[in-house]
Amino acid sequence: MTQKTIPFSEKQLAAIIESCPTPFHIYDEQKIRENARNLIRAFSWNEGFREYFAVKAAPNPFIIKILAAEGFGCDCSSLPELIISERAEVTGENIMFTSNDTPAEEFVEAQRLGAIINLDDISHIDYLEECAGLPEIICCRYNPGPLKKGNMIIGHPEEAKYGFTREQIFDGYRILRNKGIRRFGIHTMVASNELDPQYFIETAEILFSLIAELTKYLNIRFEFANIGGGLGIPYRPGQQPIDVNIISEGIRNRYDALIEKNGLAPLKLFMECGRYITGPYGYLVANVLHLKETYKNFAGLDACMANLMRPALYGAYHHITVMGRENEPADTLYDVTGSLCENNDKFAIDRKLPKLSIGDIVVIHDAGAHGHAMGFNYNGKLRSAELLLREDGKVEMIRRTETIDDYFATLDWGKMADFKV
Amino acid sequence: MTQKTIPFSEKQLAAIIESCPTPFHIYDEQKIRENARNLIRAFSWNEGFREYFAVKAAPNPFIIKILAAEGFGCDCSSLPELIISERAEVTGENIMFTSNDTPAEEFVEAQRLGAIINLDDISHIDYLEECAGLPEIICCRYNPGPLKKGNMIIGHPEEAKYGFTREQIFDGYRILRNKGIRRFGIHTMVASNELDPQYFIETAEILFSLIAELTKYLNIRFEFANIGGGLGIPYRPGQQPIDVNIISEGIRNRYDALIEKNGLAPLKLFMECGRYITGPYGYLVANVLHLKETYKNFAGLDACMANLMRPALYGAYHHITVMGRENEPADTLYDVTGSLCENNDKFAIDRKLPKLSIGDIVVIHDAGAHGHAMGFNYNGKLRSAELLLREDGKVEMIRRTETIDDYFATLDWGKMADFKV
Repeated sequence: MTQKTIPFSEKQLAAIIESCPTPFHIYDEQKIRENARNLIRAFSWNEGFREYFAVKAAPNPFIIKILAAEGFGCDCSSLPELIISERAEVTGENIMFTSNDTPAEEFVEAQRLGAIINLDDISHIDYLEECAGLPEIICCRYNPGPLKKGNMIIGHPEEAKYGFTREQIFDGYRILRNKGIRRFGIHTMVASNELDPQYFIETAEILFSLIAELTKYLNIRFEFANIGGGLGIPYRPGQQPIDVNIISEGIRNRYDALIEKNGLAPLKLFMECGRYITGPYGYLVANVLHLKETYKNFAGLDACMANLMRPALYGAYHHITVMGRENEPADTLYDVTGSLCENNDKFAIDRKLPKLSIGDIVVIHDAGAHGHAMGFNYNGKLRSAELLLREDGKVEMIRRTETIDDYFATLDWGKMADFKV
Repeated sequence: MTQKTIPFSEKQLAAIIESCPTPFHIYDEQKIRENARNLIRAFSWNEGFREYFAVKAAPNPFIIKILAAEGFGCDCSSLPELIISERAEVTGENIMFTSNDTPAEEFVEAQRLGAIINLDDISHIDYLEECAGLPEIICCRYNPGPLKKGNMIIGHPEEAKYGFTREQIFDGYRILRNKGIRRFGIHTMVASNELDPQYFIETAEILFSLIAELTKYLNIRFEFANIGGGLGIPYRPGQQPIDVNIISEGIRNRYDALIEKNGLAPLKLFMECGRYITGPYGYLVANVLHLKETYKNFAGLDACMANLMRPALYGAYHHITVMGRENEPADTLYDVTGSLCENNDKFAIDRKLPKLSIGDIVVIHDAGAHGHAMGFNYNGKLRSAELLLREDGKVEMIRRTETIDDYFATLDWGKMADFKV
């Protein structure tokens, strides 16, 4: 069972807040590194195994640089994400460019960086060739459609906008082969925030079987299979974390039966997890600004959904602890709210917490992925700073707080002053 | 019934796109002004009637300046929104500061501007007094709780984080009176995007009855009743727009019976609509970048949920027309998608449209409120420009497109280069 712990003492946190007022996100370098190593170790049987971190989960170049030092690549899906990767010195085949509905300039940039391009659609073959030329190595994204059911978040793959159909994937590789490409990979991703290891084992099995068919049918060789990301994290304290060793072992069995035995080895296994890597090791730290008792008890924080949108957007659970009161009984029911003028701006509904006081520091857990990254400026809210707790215990600011000037950057005040109404 | 029209011809739009590439939002000044005048005219029986435009709906100072010229004030709920109002020359009691979970510096700024402060909670009386002193005129926000049921979006008022309970509202005004305040207003808002006029008539009735009770009980005088916003717009072509004349007439009846007859007149009526004012007169213009046929037909635009989040966030319907093909039969089923690496990045699901070609220009209607305003940078997506179609037919850029440099503004690349991993 997960214990929701925090990597700093009350005193340490007070010192951090002194130099950076709440709210902020803070990431735990040591835990992120341990987690990265653990994943790589679990798949060490597969030579060439690589995790391409899904940059969208935590698009901070400092975090990317740490992950790159651990041997991770980057999974990018937009121009700014490609730039972040390059600045973090992740280039060439250490980048997987998995985009959809892609504009030409993004393919051009991906090509310039030597990224592995993961085509989302059969029509992108011609589009890519025209705008950027064809690369030496290419990947196609497979959508198994009604052949495999997704989980609650992704829904039914046949409804998803991603990937080639089964028929198209045969056509696609044939066309690419006929255009002279010799190095191939294949990709699929059908889960999101899934905690059942079986899901990922089945995903690998689907790809391994398909590789066997495609190889035979088209006489091409696959260098890698990218089973995507989607590994969940235990947001609720009672949940069991997913065991990557079980996933690895299950995939290894399928690898032996479907790849090794069919003479298709070596085949590199790739993943593109985001949430699983940094999610549990990022914390949103906020201050209790107001307590309100009306028809319910409300604890109003100085953070809002601009800092973490998942509870408001998906009704997602994020565990909340109160600094220094972790051992007090959680006997008071609160809606934990932000200040947005939007009724669903709540971090928790009907949550039992220790009785709060104004000025209490609360820690919102599992905010290390899809947290800061999804922040918006609705209602004029500004996005918070990101801090990094380094392995030596020092804290570095890896992204400053947004200012009102940032918020107004796209406005021309001079023009506005002259604007005749 | 609403007809979904656009205020520009195909040729005009082509010229606009030449100077500002898609995607962009474009607002129709003439229609916004007509709509503003229509609202004011409907309530002309009430001396002092004022609409405080909910800035969060379209926080663009150019739009605010136009609305101010029509006699609107601003409803603000954050520091940046107060600054936008001030820059648009809306100050003093032309600002209503309706915030919740409010930080001290925002009360200070609201006071500095002479805004009417709308207190969200009884505890804010002391908080405001301590941080900014008490103003000459004050308003309290009433939450009728289980006494009135909200509609689908707002849900049950007793679950909402906003406002004073019935008991608290009596205590609140008594405390404020005893602290020497003599000018009072009252506010409530229990609906969002509601198309039934009865809702707003009932809201006014609730406030008028409460004013009668409060006046009698506390011997104070109310200057205004703010019935909030929440007027819906007909997002679907078949829907009937809400008739503000019906709302006005209904409220006038209640005013005569509850205010006039009880000797409580004059009482100014305030509203704080956002969506109703600009929503139908803003358009998101985008280009069909890719067409994809897999298990469904997908039309991939160069816009994404960073430009308009309502369909992905709420499953909201936004009407879509294809430039120059308005009269062609809508006989082809599409999911209209954006390029975000997020499966719910869809503007429409299973929407019948004329058969599309790559390069078609699509117009997404009713994007003039809660459109650009809710944009985020998830996945490294950049927010689009805002244009204004002026009354003389000229087009002005009222907000430029976000750049990659804007996106990276909060990062310190120098520090990043020296960052040791």
